[in-house]
Amino acid sequence: MSSSLIIWSNVSLPKSVSDLLRDRLGGHTLIAPEVADKSNLVAGPPDPSFALADVAFGQPHPQDVVQSSNLKWVHLSSAGYTRYDTDALRAHASSRDLRFTNSSGVYNEPCAQHVLAMMLSIARQLNGAQDDQRAGSTWPYLPLREKSFLLNGQSALIVGYGAIGQRLAELLAPFQMKLMGFRRTPTGRESIPVRPISEVDAHLPTADHVINILPAAPGTQGFFDTKRISTLKPGVRFYNIGRGNTVDQTALVDALKSGRVDSSYLDVTDPEPLPASHALWTAPNSFITPHTAGGHVNEFERLTEHFLMNFDRFTTGQTLVDRIF
Amino acid sequence: MSSSLIIWSNVSLPKSVSDLLRDRLGGHTLIAPEVADKSNLVAGPPDPSFALADVAFGQPHPQDVVQSSNLKWVHLSSAGYTRYDTDALRAHASSRDLRFTNSSGVYNEPCAQHVLAMMLSIARQLNGAQDDQRAGSTWPYLPLREKSFLLNGQSALIVGYGAIGQRLAELLAPFQMKLMGFRRTPTGRESIPVRPISEVDAHLPTADHVINILPAAPGTQGFFDTKRISTLKPGVRFYNIGRGNTVDQTALVDALKSGRVDSSYLDVTDPEPLPASHALWTAPNSFITPHTAGGHVNEFERLTEHFLMNFDRFTTGQTLVDRIF
Repeated sequence: MSSSLIIWSNVSLPKSVSDLLRDRLGGHTLIAPEVADKSNLVAGPPDPSFALADVAFGQPHPQDVVQSSNLKWVHLSSAGYTRYDTDALRAHASSRDLRFTNSSGVYNEPCAQHVLAMMLSIARQLNGAQDDQRAGSTWPYLPLREKSFLLNGQSALIVGYGAIGQRLAELLAPFQMKLMGFRRTPTGRESIPVRPISEVDAHLPTADHVINILPAAPGTQGFFDTKRISTLKPGVRFYNIGRGNTVDQTALVDALKSGRVDSSYLDVTDPEPLPASHALWTAPNSFITPHTAGGHVNEFERLTEHFLMNFDRFTTGQTLVDRIF
Repeated sequence: MSSSLIIWSNVSLPKSVSDLLRDRLGGHTLIAPEVADKSNLVAGPPDPSFALADVAFGQPHPQDVVQSSNLKWVHLSSAGYTRYDTDALRAHASSRDLRFTNSSGVYNEPCAQHVLAMMLSIARQLNGAQDDQRAGSTWPYLPLREKSFLLNGQSALIVGYGAIGQRLAELLAPFQMKLMGFRRTPTGRESIPVRPISEVDAHLPTADHVINILPAAPGTQGFFDTKRISTLKPGVRFYNIGRGNTVDQTALVDALKSGRVDSSYLDVTDPEPLPASHALWTAPNSFITPHTAGGHVNEFERLTEHFLMNFDRFTTGQTLVDRIF
């Protein structure tokens, strides 16, 4: 391990956080791309200085990564990594012992809290109360109480059960719901019952809540299609904080209109931003947050702390946390 | 104990639930008042048939209770019991071994979930997203992410720590917040640190969240007055599911306007319904639910099950649950 490393980062950090990062990197050298980015979830353009990097923190251009010869480790500033999950990049990485980690440890917590917020907002009819408040306050005491419900004893499927689902299950533990997770390959060590995703169809017709955390991956596009949506339990609540393209949005709008789906709360759509004219904005009981599930005011501090924690592990030869390949 | 009891109830139950109640009461006799009520939280008028009752389930008129000679037990269909908490009624009860219980076991759960829903709605900026959705969807991705925050590590005071506060503390346990409760007389057996209400002023200036669950009781009227509100930590989030008259609403509106209070979520106001012209409806980050915290679709089933559970205890001479005096 070289004693002085070059760390390339295109994460657009507030000054106090970039100062912290520079301080904590000590004798190592932090370099930035020539063109700065606005979001830590968007890939920048190719950057000539990238060739110097031993370590990358952020969203490097995949082409830069494939062409790199110095690079030993990429720590992505997001939980998602679809654009890096290519045969070319995996081959390049495995041929050179180039490691990839992501920031899922930063985003599990806000994402899990976001899902619980959505579930409780519907259960407690906060959305209806807010609409009434904005419309001029008719104090709809009885109708809102009659639409409110307890989560206790209800069933919820977590489709795409990973680190976010695991944290969500912890947050939901006091509610005594019937939880079941679905993932490609259950480990058998999960804290709730988890089944292979291939078995989900048998459970969709009985679930009170369906929580979609499917990533963009082979086989997830259009996963919740017309057929699956038509088998959901009448009155189901549907949530999506995975990827917008895993849901047939036309089928969802139809199901909201017919009432088969009582309500949906989506943090992701296809496309994003969702066009102002899209039917999902105005369908009955359709609620949308604009891909904010992972956001938090101290996001950049926590991203940087997470990277620095892993950087310590990297320089001392320990196993990296949140390794993806 | 008489083998056949007369149970008076003015709870306006759906037919399926009143059938269940009648069935489960077996050989005992269920009677209803001459004038039915719309809400299980409102006292009915005096009722001549009340004099026959051994047991009352609902909201009997206090005057009927004081004049009763048969009555052995009143099970209130609410958690609050201000209108029964009078010297005359307590004297009558203690002179005749007339027991009073309430339905707090039914309402702790929805009320605690309602507070958590409010906290998470603010933390995840669901209200801002909904306003944007209704206004025509500008997809305010970055501003909402930057206003979102994690509850973890933040401090919250539960002012009026009783059964709802205890359940709320259980729901909040996975969030690793710094919780502190305040009540008239701490028992020392609470699961979080709980101090006498007289010590709350020392803690108000440092709390990120102030959760008001104060009941209507001597000393709670106007508890959150101009002076106390002026000592709150700048940027605090304030919640009220206790009683509206425990807060100086003019002072709260001023604090919302100045930004000292970042946001408030109130389920109770003074008066209720809050007049449509009241400044709380439109003050910045002021959110209101119309006294719906305790409501849930199966409220009447759960009220009835709770009464029947206690009725079994009553007829078998066991200690009554949720006894208030």
